[in-house]
Amino acid sequence: MTEFRFEIHKTDGRARTGVIHTPRGEIRTPAFMPVGTAATVKAMLPAQVWETGADIVLGNTYHLMLRPGAERIARLGGLHKFMGWERPILTDSGGFQVMSLAQLRKISEDGVRFQSHIDGHAEFLTPERSMEIQRLLGSDIQMVFDECPKLPAPESAIEKSLELSMRWARRSKAAFGEQPGHACFGIVQGGTVARLRQRSAEALREIGFDGYAVGGLAVGEPQNEMFDTLDATVPHLPADKPHYLMGVGKPDDLVGAVLRGIDMFDCVLPTRSGRNGQAFTRDGTLNLKNAKHADDPAPIDAACGCTACRQFSRAYLHHVVKANEIIASMLLTAHNLTFYQDVMTGMRAAIAGSSLDSWAASFLARYSAKTVADA
Amino acid sequence: MTEFRFEIHKTDGRARTGVIHTPRGEIRTPAFMPVGTAATVKAMLPAQVWETGADIVLGNTYHLMLRPGAERIARLGGLHKFMGWERPILTDSGGFQVMSLAQLRKISEDGVRFQSHIDGHAEFLTPERSMEIQRLLGSDIQMVFDECPKLPAPESAIEKSLELSMRWARRSKAAFGEQPGHACFGIVQGGTVARLRQRSAEALREIGFDGYAVGGLAVGEPQNEMFDTLDATVPHLPADKPHYLMGVGKPDDLVGAVLRGIDMFDCVLPTRSGRNGQAFTRDGTLNLKNAKHADDPAPIDAACGCTACRQFSRAYLHHVVKANEIIASMLLTAHNLTFYQDVMTGMRAAIAGSSLDSWAASFLARYSAKTVADA
Repeated sequence: MTEFRFEIHKTDGRARTGVIHTPRGEIRTPAFMPVGTAATVKAMLPAQVWETGADIVLGNTYHLMLRPGAERIARLGGLHKFMGWERPILTDSGGFQVMSLAQLRKISEDGVRFQSHIDGHAEFLTPERSMEIQRLLGSDIQMVFDECPKLPAPESAIEKSLELSMRWARRSKAAFGEQPGHACFGIVQGGTVARLRQRSAEALREIGFDGYAVGGLAVGEPQNEMFDTLDATVPHLPADKPHYLMGVGKPDDLVGAVLRGIDMFDCVLPTRSGRNGQAFTRDGTLNLKNAKHADDPAPIDAACGCTACRQFSRAYLHHVVKANEIIASMLLTAHNLTFYQDVMTGMRAAIAGSSLDSWAASFLARYSAKTVADA
Repeated sequence: MTEFRFEIHKTDGRARTGVIHTPRGEIRTPAFMPVGTAATVKAMLPAQVWETGADIVLGNTYHLMLRPGAERIARLGGLHKFMGWERPILTDSGGFQVMSLAQLRKISEDGVRFQSHIDGHAEFLTPERSMEIQRLLGSDIQMVFDECPKLPAPESAIEKSLELSMRWARRSKAAFGEQPGHACFGIVQGGTVARLRQRSAEALREIGFDGYAVGGLAVGEPQNEMFDTLDATVPHLPADKPHYLMGVGKPDDLVGAVLRGIDMFDCVLPTRSGRNGQAFTRDGTLNLKNAKHADDPAPIDAACGCTACRQFSRAYLHHVVKANEIIASMLLTAHNLTFYQDVMTGMRAAIAGSSLDSWAASFLARYSAKTVADA
C-alpha cells in the first residue's frame, strides 16, 4: 500500500511544488481543495469536480456527523463511496463549525457540548470523538480537534484557547493512532500574535504530525495581517511536511500564501460565489446579475476551458442567474473551480520554472479584488 | 438542406415507429421531449440531456418572450446557440401558459392581452406574434397559437373556443409562411367531446400542417377519458404526419397513447418530480425523502445506466434530498429523464418487433401508478 508521503520537487524562495502521495491518488501542490461540506461539492457531480483539475476535496465533520451521521456513512462503505469521489478527501475536525454554526456551545477541558443547527439535538464533540468520526468517514487527511476563539480577542484569551487546543492536539494524535496510508495534521493557532503562533508551532512539532495547518486566519483580518502571521509561522513548521492554510481564500490570498510557503488551501469562495452569480476571472470577479451582461455574446473568459466558457455566453449566464435556474449554479461553480485550479496550475509551473515572483507580480498587477463588471 | 420529413418505419396496430428528419438532426419516434422552459432543462447541462437519449427538447414561447425576450435571443444567434442545444427544438405557442400563468387575461378575436407573471408588465399575444417569436427563436417545430379553455366547461363554451382556435390556426399557418427545414404543427382542441375533436381535426387537415398535436388533455380528466378522446381523434389525423400529445404524461399515459397512434410527447413530470425527490422506476415512483431509504446501499434501479444509478445509493440520494443539495435535483432529473427515454426506446423496439401489445401488458402489469416506496 502506498504510504502517505510528501515529495517536494522544487522550491522557489519559500514556495514549494511537489506531490502528496496517498493510496487514493496524488495531490499536486500547491493544491486547492473544493469544499464538499455535506458529501457534495455543491452543484457539481464528482466527475465534474475532477474535470476542473481538483485532486482532493474537503468534507466537514460537523455537517456529516449531524446528517447523515458518521456511523451510517461507515456502514455504507465510507465517505468516498457514499459521495462518489474515490480520490483523496481531507476532513476538518468540526472545531471551526462548532464555533460558527452550532447553538448553545459549552466548552470544557473534555470537549464542546452544543446543539445541532439543523434540529437542535444535543451533541458532544471531543478530540477523541472527532477523530473517531473522521476515521469512520475514511478520511485520508484527518485534522486535530481544536478550539477556535472568535477574533479579535484579548491576547490572554487567545493564549488560553491556544493552550487548550494544544492539549486537544495531543489527545487527537493519540486517538488517530496508527492508520497506514492516512495522515493526521496539526493546526497552529494563536491569532495574529507571532509569539503565540511560534509557541503553537513548536508544541505541534513536539507531538509530531504528517502535516501542519495554519488555522484561525481569514476571519476578517486585513490581508497584510494574514501575510504577516504566515511570515511569523511557516518558518517554524517542519519544511518537509505539507503546510495547509485553512479556509483561504481569494485568488490574491492564495498567491501571497504560496509565496510564503503554503502548500494546501480550501475555501467555499469559488463555490458559494458561483451560486451567487459571481464569476472569477483573471481581471477580478464578474457579477452576472448585472444588466450589462444581458446582450453580451462573449463567454466569461475565452481562454478558459470550463463547460461554461466553452459553450455559453455572458448573456445566457445573466439570463439563468436572473431566472434562478439551477444551471446557473452548475455553470458558475464549474467555472470558478476551474479558475481556482488554473491559478494553482500556474503557480506550480512557475515554481517549477523558478519564476514565481514574476508570475505573481504579473497575476496581481492584472487581478483586481473588486468586481470588475461593476466598475 | 435536409427537409422536415416524417418517415414511418413500422406500424404495429395503431402504433408507429420511425424518424422525423430535420436539418438539426433526427428524432426517433415515439419520442419524449424534455421540457426546457426558460432555455434550460432544469438542473441539466445540454450534454447531460443528450446522454439520457433525448433527440429534441421543448422551449416555452411564453417564458422566453418575457425573459430574456425573443428579439434578444435572435440577436444572440437563436435559441439553440443561446442554450447550448444544437439539436431540434420544438416551441409551444404560449397559448397554454397565457391561460395558466399570466394575470388579467383578456381574450379578443385578435389575440390575448395579459400581464407578465414575472413583473406584471402588459403583453399582447396574437397568432402572428406567437409565430414571429417562434421564428425569432429559430424553433424547428413551431406550434399554432390556440385558445385553451379551462376544463370542465359547457360544451357550448368548448365549441366556441374551438372555433376561435381554428381561426387562429389558419392565421398561425399564414404567419409561419415558408421556412424550409422548419415545421408548423396544428393543435386539435375540443375537450373530451368526440364530435368537437373530429371537427377540429378536419378543420386543421383542411389548412394543412406538417404535424398534428392533440391539446387540452391531461388537465385533470381521468386517464380513460384521455384515452377515449385519443380513440376519437387520432384516426381523423393524417396518418403520414407526426401526432403529438401535448403535456403528457405519466409513464402509463405514454404507453396507452403510443398504442393509440401518438408519436411525440412532452411533460414536466420527470424533471419536476426529480426536483421534488421522486424517482421513476419500472415498479412506480420512489419518494427519496422517505426515511426507509436512509440506510439503503442499493441504487434506484440496478438496471438503469444513468449517472445516479451507476454511482449513488438510495441512502446518498435520501441524504442529499433531505439536505436540499442541488446534486439531488441534478441526479434525480437525470435518472427520471433516462427512465422516460428508456420507456420510449422499449416501445420503439417493441413496435419494430410487432410486439407492442405484449410489451405494454408486461410494462403495465409491473408499473404501479402509486409511490411504491410508501407502500
